[in-house]
Amino acid sequence: MERILKEVLDTNRKYVNYGQVASYIPELKNAHRDDLGICIIDKDNNVYKVGDCETKFTIQSISKTIVLAMALMDNDWIDVFSKVGMEPSGDPFNSIMKLETNDTKKPCNPMINAGAIVTTSLIKGATPQEKEERMLKFFRRLAKNDNIGINYDVYESEKVSGDRNRAMAYLLKNDGFIDGDVEEVLDLYFKQCSLEIDAVDLARIGMNLASYGIDVENGERLISERVSRMVKTFMVTCGMYDASGEFAIKVGIPAKSGVGGGIMASVPNSMGIGVYGPSLDKKGNSVAGVKILEDLSKKLNLNIF
Amino acid sequence: MERILKEVLDTNRKYVNYGQVASYIPELKNAHRDDLGICIIDKDNNVYKVGDCETKFTIQSISKTIVLAMALMDNDWIDVFSKVGMEPSGDPFNSIMKLETNDTKKPCNPMINAGAIVTTSLIKGATPQEKEERMLKFFRRLAKNDNIGINYDVYESEKVSGDRNRAMAYLLKNDGFIDGDVEEVLDLYFKQCSLEIDAVDLARIGMNLASYGIDVENGERLISERVSRMVKTFMVTCGMYDASGEFAIKVGIPAKSGVGGGIMASVPNSMGIGVYGPSLDKKGNSVAGVKILEDLSKKLNLNIF
Amino acid sequence: MERILKEVLDTNRKYVNYGQVASYIPELKNAHRDDLGICIIDKDNNVYKVGDCETKFTIQSISKTIVLAMALMDNDWIDVFSKVGMEPSGDPFNSIMKLETNDTKKPCNPMINAGAIVTTSLIKGATPQEKEERMLKFFRRLAKNDNIGINYDVYESEKVSGDRNRAMAYLLKNDGFIDGDVEEVLDLYFKQCSLEIDAVDLARIGMNLASYGIDVENGERLISERVSRMVKTFMVTCGMYDASGEFAIKVGIPAKSGVGGGIMASVPNSMGIGVYGPSLDKKGNSVAGVKILEDLSKKLNLNIF
Amino acid sequence: MERILKEVLDTNRKYVNYGQVASYIPELKNAHRDDLGICIIDKDNNVYKVGDCETKFTIQSISKTIVLAMALMDNDWIDVFSKVGMEPSGDPFNSIMKLETNDTKKPCNPMINAGAIVTTSLIKGATPQEKEERMLKFFRRLAKNDNIGINYDVYESEKVSGDRNRAMAYLLKNDGFIDGDVEEVLDLYFKQCSLEIDAVDLARIGMNLASYGIDVENGERLISERVSRMVKTFMVTCGMYDASGEFAIKVGIPAKSGVGGGIMASVPNSMGIGVYGPSLDKKGNSVAGVKILEDLSKKLNLNIF
Repeated sequence: MERILKEVLDTNRKYVNYGQVASYIPELKNAHRDDLGICIIDKDNNVYKVGDCETKFTIQSISKTIVLAMALMDNDWIDVFSKVGMEPSGDPFNSIMKLETNDTKKPCNPMINAGAIVTTSLIKGATPQEKEERMLKFFRRLAKNDNIGINYDVYESEKVSGDRNRAMAYLLKNDGFIDGDVEEVLDLYFKQCSLEIDAVDLARIGMNLASYGIDVENGERLISERVSRMVKTFMVTCGMYDASGEFAIKVGIPAKSGVGGGIMASVPNSMGIGVYGPSLDKKGNSVAGVKILEDLSKKLNLNIF
Repeated sequence: MERILKEVLDTNRKYVNYGQVASYIPELKNAHRDDLGICIIDKDNNVYKVGDCETKFTIQSISKTIVLAMALMDNDWIDVFSKVGMEPSGDPFNSIMKLETNDTKKPCNPMINAGAIVTTSLIKGATPQEKEERMLKFFRRLAKNDNIGINYDVYESEKVSGDRNRAMAYLLKNDGFIDGDVEEVLDLYFKQCSLEIDAVDLARIGMNLASYGIDVENGERLISERVSRMVKTFMVTCGMYDASGEFAIKVGIPAKSGVGGGIMASVPNSMGIGVYGPSLDKKGNSVAGVKILEDLSKKLNLNIF
Repeated sequence: MERILKEVLDTNRKYVNYGQVASYIPELKNAHRDDLGICIIDKDNNVYKVGDCETKFTIQSISKTIVLAMALMDNDWIDVFSKVGMEPSGDPFNSIMKLETNDTKKPCNPMINAGAIVTTSLIKGATPQEKEERMLKFFRRLAKNDNIGINYDVYESEKVSGDRNRAMAYLLKNDGFIDGDVEEVLDLYFKQCSLEIDAVDLARIGMNLASYGIDVENGERLISERVSRMVKTFMVTCGMYDASGEFAIKVGIPAKSGVGGGIMASVPNSMGIGVYGPSLDKKGNSVAGVKILEDLSKKLNLNIF
Repeated sequence: MERILKEVLDTNRKYVNYGQVASYIPELKNAHRDDLGICIIDKDNNVYKVGDCETKFTIQSISKTIVLAMALMDNDWIDVFSKVGMEPSGDPFNSIMKLETNDTKKPCNPMINAGAIVTTSLIKGATPQEKEERMLKFFRRLAKNDNIGINYDVYESEKVSGDRNRAMAYLLKNDGFIDGDVEEVLDLYFKQCSLEIDAVDLARIGMNLASYGIDVENGERLISERVSRMVKTFMVTCGMYDASGEFAIKVGIPAKSGVGGGIMASVPNSMGIGVYGPSLDKKGNSVAGVKILEDLSKKLNLNIF
């Protein structure tokens, strides 16, 4: 397996030249465009690593999957889906238009920013601090890594430059899809995006989703089977921004990417894959990361369709 | 003239039954649906009044015309129109969609909320207080009425329920169309909407626009001819929400309406007309007010086309 | 007057370099980018000409004004406006989107292609031939020029390359806004666009609209006052494609342009102006033509607002 | 298995009351709203049937999957996907808007009408007759049923009432996404929609897709593994109209529905399922059919995520 990973990494290294690191906030610009790492954890708990698997980066949109799981565990599903839809949108992740043109005006799904702001608002907790702690604890538990924490430089930058998300949040508030204080919800949203993780963390979370929510090390149930399936389904239909359809066709694995350069893939009943490669294509997905997953899907026969 | 006004008022009184007073904030719900008043001031400074011309109401969107004039007087026109367009939008006044789908992303024109938030942000002043005072002074001068002031109950309500405007403002900020603090801009915007006026004030401001900016009483220039023409042009192309085209066809007079129930009309080189009738149609225009202006246009031959 | 025209022509000749002749069909590409002509006919029937006033070109979208007048004369207005709206659209002339997103699905106004296809379908006649003859006769009468005819090369080209208009027409048919055979309607539409006229013809038609429908030579009524006003109103709100608002602000005269290079302007109770200049800006308006009208408006004080 | 099918059928029969048969053409209105049938064919070629499995109905949109397979077999994939995208659209199946607002203007995917018109245009053949015969042969081969043929009443009706599809086709032609004669392409498109099949045919085709293109009876390869996976992927992301996302979440099986009342499901490496139930929900999916598949997914553990 490690040989295959090495080969796949080497073959696709050239693609880092076809993209750029994210630049909307200064902190993301500091990433090294050439970094590339793959980690696979399988259902027998074998861990395979190659390349830059210890490099830390912010989770960004990948957190949307975990926050969705949390919202589904904290709330009645009917309530959750009365505030966020289940349909792919066909629009960029930060599009506002559909919030106006949709019949229901609710965000199309929990993988676009507007939808994730809604699921964030559904995390339970008596105080903002408690919500933050619960969120942090849940991420650490799923990744089995207590060192996961917030990158405060990124968080501050996101907050300062987050007027587009702020606009969405106020519109969602206006239309009744989020309750409570908008800035408080956004604060938790920006924090969640700023969690610092590495490729191994992503592989671990991916494996825990792949095993239908059961920790493959100790058999503990972390999330329900139903929720684990729902999350993987959203990863397929909307996980790779407005390239999700193409990714499903070419790769055929549930996956979620973030502009920090990470992709978390989860092959049902088989393995979790974490990829790190901060050179992004125009849609915000890791250029080399997508190519790597395409190759892995072929070589390891992972396509679920 | 007063006979004609009386007749027109009586004929169209029935239309108050076809609409509803605005209800998005409690204060507007308190208006009396049956109230109806017309005031005409002509270029010889004759003042004709019939019906409820002393009833106070909030100016709402009609203020957009005055704030536009002020923005054009306070700034280089190139700068103003780099931040707000000149085209009718064909969309409702509070639409956000065009801010995303437009090539430029800038608000289509200064008569929709997004555009008026931009013009508000262009009012000069060292402090928020100074901006507010300058604005207030300009309204009072144009209406020749020093008693014009803010209805603080309406202002507070607008502010509390203004999340849709807030969403627009943050999007405008994000896209570089407003500078400075968003909440500060919104505060002035909500104050401007909450100015309390009556039909006579509207007729007076309308006359001052009709006379190309010259006070018909004392010959003083209040605004430049060019600005007075620009304002009247926007009134024709976008003054009556997304019924502006229909109003231009049926009435053919520059006019601007507000959800407080007022309509300010300005017949170039002829007269200003203020109408009050808080029973609104679905697009936000005074039902009876529109009918009254249609009749006046025919009877007094006011159509400019 | 002729001196002013000459001066305005010379001053603005340079602008022909800032545009391009239309190129979507080969026949339009043959126009000379440098051609420029102005004709004014005033209400005393004085005719002033300067530059290329004898050059023939196709009327293109300017015909939409005349066909609208004809539809309004041939039908009950309620019927006409149940099939085409009165609102500016804020979208390009050949946009399809609003036909889907509008509540009513009907074309926004008769100056965009979709709306003009509707008004064309409303021209009365027992056979396609009769409709064509009636249309031709009406154009000739308004221009007082029996030589006006169809440029069959342009017509054939429009027909062959007209799939976008064809798409609109079938959508309009599907949604009940046009009756009868789609290809028949399109045929008349393409013919009307292919009428060959010159700047003098446009000035004459413009004068006949300016005089509220009365032939200034012989006092004959050609169209009703009401219809003449409606046409001029649509010229202001939607006559210059999606630059209509800007043109109204800067020039302030009812005008309609065509991609053949013509602009027909109509100053109420004053004059008709025909301009020819086939070098177009990106929105489809004659670059120099717009500048010429802006100068004429200032020099002759023609702004109606 | 047959007991389970019977039980599932009985439990969900009540849902027929929550929908309506399609009514846009008279022929579809003749379906019996109460009809309901399920057929499963598994990879050991066992055939299980319950309810109305012999009732014939038109395949409608389900044909889009087969025509896509054919287009992919007849053409270079790069060519195919230069003319039709891979992304779910989030819009209704007959939406035109995205053809205008998309950057590329190409149809989002081959499961919406516009996309299927494109794939239809890509079927090879020297003449329209040859294309039709090849298409027919391919459907018959995949369903292993030589009796499949066109319902000419439905075909004629589709053709007569097909102006919306006609509008799309002309727009696609205009934008270069279909070559050749538009009416010819539409003719084949309408024929393909009018193929008459039953639930057993759908189960058989579903099984042949589930087995990655290999006939489970005789081991013959009908379509390539890659194409079979691509088709199933599109079924997940866009197979159930604008309820595809919800169906994926709730059922988790590749499936394609048609307004004739059929749903074809294909569980990779496991089984094909054909359901017939012409009572449709607002989005065009069989009401009871969807519920049946949801129950089967749970009872037989078919969710692929």
